[in-house]
Amino acid sequence: MHEIVDVTFELKTYEYSEPFRIANNVENKANNIEVRVYLKDGTIGIGEASSSYRVNGEKVPALFALQDTVKEMIAGEDVGNYRRIFDIMDGFSRTAPSVKAAVQYATLDALGVVMGIPVYQILGGSKSKIHTDKTIGIDTIDVMVEKARKTFDEGFKTLKIKIGENLKEDIKKMVAISEATPGASYIVDANQGYTAKMAIQFAQSVYAQNVNVAVFEQPIMWNDLDGLKLLRYNSPFPIAADESAKTRHDVYTLIRNECVDFVNIKLMKSGLSDALSIVELAKTTNIGLMIGCMGESSVGINQSVHFAAGTGAFAYHDLDSHMMLKEEFRGKFKQEGDALIPNV
Amino acid sequence: MHEIVDVTFELKTYEYSEPFRIANNVENKANNIEVRVYLKDGTIGIGEASSSYRVNGEKVPALFALQDTVKEMIAGEDVGNYRRIFDIMDGFSRTAPSVKAAVQYATLDALGVVMGIPVYQILGGSKSKIHTDKTIGIDTIDVMVEKARKTFDEGFKTLKIKIGENLKEDIKKMVAISEATPGASYIVDANQGYTAKMAIQFAQSVYAQNVNVAVFEQPIMWNDLDGLKLLRYNSPFPIAADESAKTRHDVYTLIRNECVDFVNIKLMKSGLSDALSIVELAKTTNIGLMIGCMGESSVGINQSVHFAAGTGAFAYHDLDSHMMLKEEFRGKFKQEGDALIPNV
Repeated sequence: MHEIVDVTFELKTYEYSEPFRIANNVENKANNIEVRVYLKDGTIGIGEASSSYRVNGEKVPALFALQDTVKEMIAGEDVGNYRRIFDIMDGFSRTAPSVKAAVQYATLDALGVVMGIPVYQILGGSKSKIHTDKTIGIDTIDVMVEKARKTFDEGFKTLKIKIGENLKEDIKKMVAISEATPGASYIVDANQGYTAKMAIQFAQSVYAQNVNVAVFEQPIMWNDLDGLKLLRYNSPFPIAADESAKTRHDVYTLIRNECVDFVNIKLMKSGLSDALSIVELAKTTNIGLMIGCMGESSVGINQSVHFAAGTGAFAYHDLDSHMMLKEEFRGKFKQEGDALIPNV
Repeated sequence: MHEIVDVTFELKTYEYSEPFRIANNVENKANNIEVRVYLKDGTIGIGEASSSYRVNGEKVPALFALQDTVKEMIAGEDVGNYRRIFDIMDGFSRTAPSVKAAVQYATLDALGVVMGIPVYQILGGSKSKIHTDKTIGIDTIDVMVEKARKTFDEGFKTLKIKIGENLKEDIKKMVAISEATPGASYIVDANQGYTAKMAIQFAQSVYAQNVNVAVFEQPIMWNDLDGLKLLRYNSPFPIAADESAKTRHDVYTLIRNECVDFVNIKLMKSGLSDALSIVELAKTTNIGLMIGCMGESSVGINQSVHFAAGTGAFAYHDLDSHMMLKEEFRGKFKQEGDALIPNV
């Protein structure tokens, strides 16, 4: 019916409006790969891979070199049989997860065009609108407080606060931000910058100072599962895994070992196939979910908007990277303040 | 876009061609409920509930009385937002799982009609054809051997053998059937008729006599999880849960406690929503899957054909109840010998 006849990769570089700093890392630009799948009837499906060396171990030259290989692997497949294409791409779960995500999404994008319905409805159409947080990168306490206040005043009810480089300062920052933005919710992300003991100290200290953290994300190293469990049992706030939670297998291991209250799904870590598994795993075991991003443009954020609205599985949406990049908006969704609305 | 405006239940009674006997139970007829959802534009989606008191605790009068309640619960919902309807029906997971299944499927059936694609492609289109086994009910050894031979000769490569009422006789039956049908695969189902120790004796005995059992299904009581684990660790054959595995939560508990190698998903136990969770759980944890049925007519079996072909998740398909009932075929699939082909 609707066979794939060609696949193209295009390199796209987006500059950040200002350097984006998280624990032990600064980004100045995002080098993304825009993936197109072409069907026999001329339909085009679009996806975007925003890779991460820090999280996934991916490097753009290796990913970009896969164009013809991917084409060989999926040419002739019908996008109506999308789970076959998902299965084929699952082989890249470790080596090229962002490419896996982009190809899987481009498949659904093409299917949506063919069927005349938006992707979020193929995935179940749970929500017609979601709300994103906005991220405050690491900076001086004054700059972070000022940015938090400004962002909250702009209508972003949930702020994602990056910490993880200096425990004592981080505690001061969180208390100051909390005082400056009464009524805001905070997702606090230390990006593996702490030890478990430091993370416990942070959580208990800000809790004692009346800071209400909605989710405390990946404070410690991704492979410290014992540390996560220790932290979880000693934190008044829900503990989320991000860098620890790439594949469905990772998440099962985390849940089985009682390491997490929340998981941050990113399509760039998991693709759509593992993300769907994690959604069902979380539903089964009453684990909370949030959805995040790497350095996606609006083309890549579009993928997560449709996935999140379709499955309706997420308590928090951290889909703001496109707002930090210099780009021309090309998503198949509308943005109104903090609301992201998949197009019908 | 495509709102539900009405829901109707219709009682349908199908007689079995001959009494169907399993461990401690005989069925003479299936009292099913045919569910229709009507959309504003006139589109009709069809599902079927084939309830089970033995497994689910369901009784037809209570289910049938839910027609107007279900209508109230889902009227106004758009079938394009099918996960919302799935979520609403999840409240019936314990009290009316077969109705949950029928309404969830009727929703997808209507969506498929609206979009002009078959349901198995909405679900991913993994396989364009599946193969079913055929069941040999409990009878004398001579009758069972003869039926097994005839069924195998008709082209059914996998035979489902019902046992569980008499251990010594069951062992003799399995050996005799195996000798009469060389090359066949066997799913052996004791429907909770044994203790764990009896089940171990059965498995080890037929194994020693060169009978190759593909799956040994629910030999012991559904709530004997310790027994299942004991059996699993002492059986040369994969152990499957059926009556033990109704909801996604049941299956997580079984997996986490190392009780099973296989799970038998039935839409009548789980609906589509829990069945989708179980598919992802099994994929994540490398548990094998089969799909089975209660007393569905071709209208109900159609649901499982599309679910199984769409997800592509099943090693074995036990979708033969419609072949045992006196009915006029009305499925949206074709049958060629043991092959079930969802219509395109």
